[in-house]
Amino acid sequence: MNVTMALDLGGTKVEAALVRADGTVVEGTRSRAATGAAAAADRAAGERAIAQVVRHCAAAPEWASVSGAGIGSAGPVDLGAGTIGPINLPAMQGFGITGFVREVSGLEEVSLRLDGTCIALAESWLGAARGVRNALVMVVSTGVGGGLVSDGRIVSGGGGNAGHLGQVVVDRIASSAHDATVEGIASGPSTVRWAQGEGWDGASGEDLARDYAAGVEVAVAAVRRSARAVGLGLVNAATLLDLEVAVIGGGFSFVADDYPDLVAAAVREHAVNAYAADLKVVRAELGGDAPLIGAAALVHRADLL
Amino acid sequence: MNVTMALDLGGTKVEAALVRADGTVVEGTRSRAATGAAAAADRAAGERAIAQVVRHCAAAPEWASVSGAGIGSAGPVDLGAGTIGPINLPAMQGFGITGFVREVSGLEEVSLRLDGTCIALAESWLGAARGVRNALVMVVSTGVGGGLVSDGRIVSGGGGNAGHLGQVVVDRIASSAHDATVEGIASGPSTVRWAQGEGWDGASGEDLARDYAAGVEVAVAAVRRSARAVGLGLVNAATLLDLEVAVIGGGFSFVADDYPDLVAAAVREHAVNAYAADLKVVRAELGGDAPLIGAAALVHRADLL
Repeated sequence: MNVTMALDLGGTKVEAALVRADGTVVEGTRSRAATGAAAAADRAAGERAIAQVVRHCAAAPEWASVSGAGIGSAGPVDLGAGTIGPINLPAMQGFGITGFVREVSGLEEVSLRLDGTCIALAESWLGAARGVRNALVMVVSTGVGGGLVSDGRIVSGGGGNAGHLGQVVVDRIASSAHDATVEGIASGPSTVRWAQGEGWDGASGEDLARDYAAGVEVAVAAVRRSARAVGLGLVNAATLLDLEVAVIGGGFSFVADDYPDLVAAAVREHAVNAYAADLKVVRAELGGDAPLIGAAALVHRADLL
Repeated sequence: MNVTMALDLGGTKVEAALVRADGTVVEGTRSRAATGAAAAADRAAGERAIAQVVRHCAAAPEWASVSGAGIGSAGPVDLGAGTIGPINLPAMQGFGITGFVREVSGLEEVSLRLDGTCIALAESWLGAARGVRNALVMVVSTGVGGGLVSDGRIVSGGGGNAGHLGQVVVDRIASSAHDATVEGIASGPSTVRWAQGEGWDGASGEDLARDYAAGVEVAVAAVRRSARAVGLGLVNAATLLDLEVAVIGGGFSFVADDYPDLVAAAVREHAVNAYAADLKVVRAELGGDAPLIGAAALVHRADLL
């Protein structure tokens, strides 16, 4: 069976695994290595981490069936150059990850996309956006990111950075450019900070989830504020792209059982066009496996590119 | 030479012409008929107007070389059903324009898209977005509309309504949903109204253009406010789609010689991501011919669909 090496590079870790053509991970091939502070300061440390997880894959008996590699990376990326510039890894700015993985693995076919694009690809292949020709897949967590499927294909954009829903501007009276964005308002840390500013004494997203469930007023207001900003971002995406479905994942989206419903209500409230108000908002299905599965889909599901 | 019948249906008129494969209009084939109040109240009046411009095309000697028809229509549209629902033409809601044109013309191949999509297609084929793989083409006039090119293809979206930049929300504290949008703030009528509210005594976009050029303070502020709302809308589109170029046309965009520069400055001010701040903002090149040329491109440039 045809097998792909999937690699996901983030600000804290790099992870790789062999993934079959049905989206299942080959047992024993998955491994991770820290990136974080070491790779942020020293490119060689980042290269060692990547090489380590690639070699772990290459040691598996199934390596003989590997036809190519798919890479998802924290952004921004430059697909034309095959390079990345993850914000949290200063030493990796302009790193030619495609060439590096080609060299370390010996594989010819190496495909790179933004991690958000890979997550959208994964949900489109095997998750909540299966068969949907126009979808936005997003993660609400420490940050807010995403990826797009438009007219049945993954959207890359000029440099490969399409899908950054977190940086969509939804509040023009904010004190800074970032505070005006979906991420600046709706992320886990932003929401916790806002609640604390309103006198709430909790410290984390988990505390907020507990107090939301208990009906504590400020916790309810904080969660609704987050969902409203996400909804405003989605109104804009749905208006521009005539989307059918928005898929929401990420740890902070579990702060409330009805988080997708709150988001959908905000979409309905702010949409001017009926087709945008009709956006369906659902939970992601793949969870933490999505980045790797999506990276594998860069090879297995080239029809979606 | 291969010739296409192009048809553009709007709230005030319907226009048609035969267009060659190089984008030129066949002399003498262009005609228009009023839609307006008659078609708004009576579907049969709208049908007669469409049939009239189609028959004018069919009377030309070049009709023998016509291989298909492309239709651009005021939105919203439903491409799956082949129907339209122009806001200004209540009697035409749900009108099966594709089938009607097929019947009247006898042509088998009839392709429908939103008028904004056709304008984007035209600029992408022969205008300011030529060769650009990721572009937004917009019209700033009585309304604000547009179309998208993403990864080298025109974006349709679920029902065909992608590209509605005018309904992107950029001001969440507005008093109504429409007032919060790019169109609600930046259109010609909205801008004139705002200036009048600030004590300006002019009456039209032309007056505003004159006073802007003369440096009249409130006129300058009104034009900047319009450009800022357009820029905020473009920031969101560029962030979501990693666009390379935004093309601005439409009568009101001529209110100021430097209107594209004002828009670009707003984009740079509000963009969080560098790739979005880098958006190039240029003027449209095709003017009033764009809708017809774009409708013809639905047949001549199927590679862009």
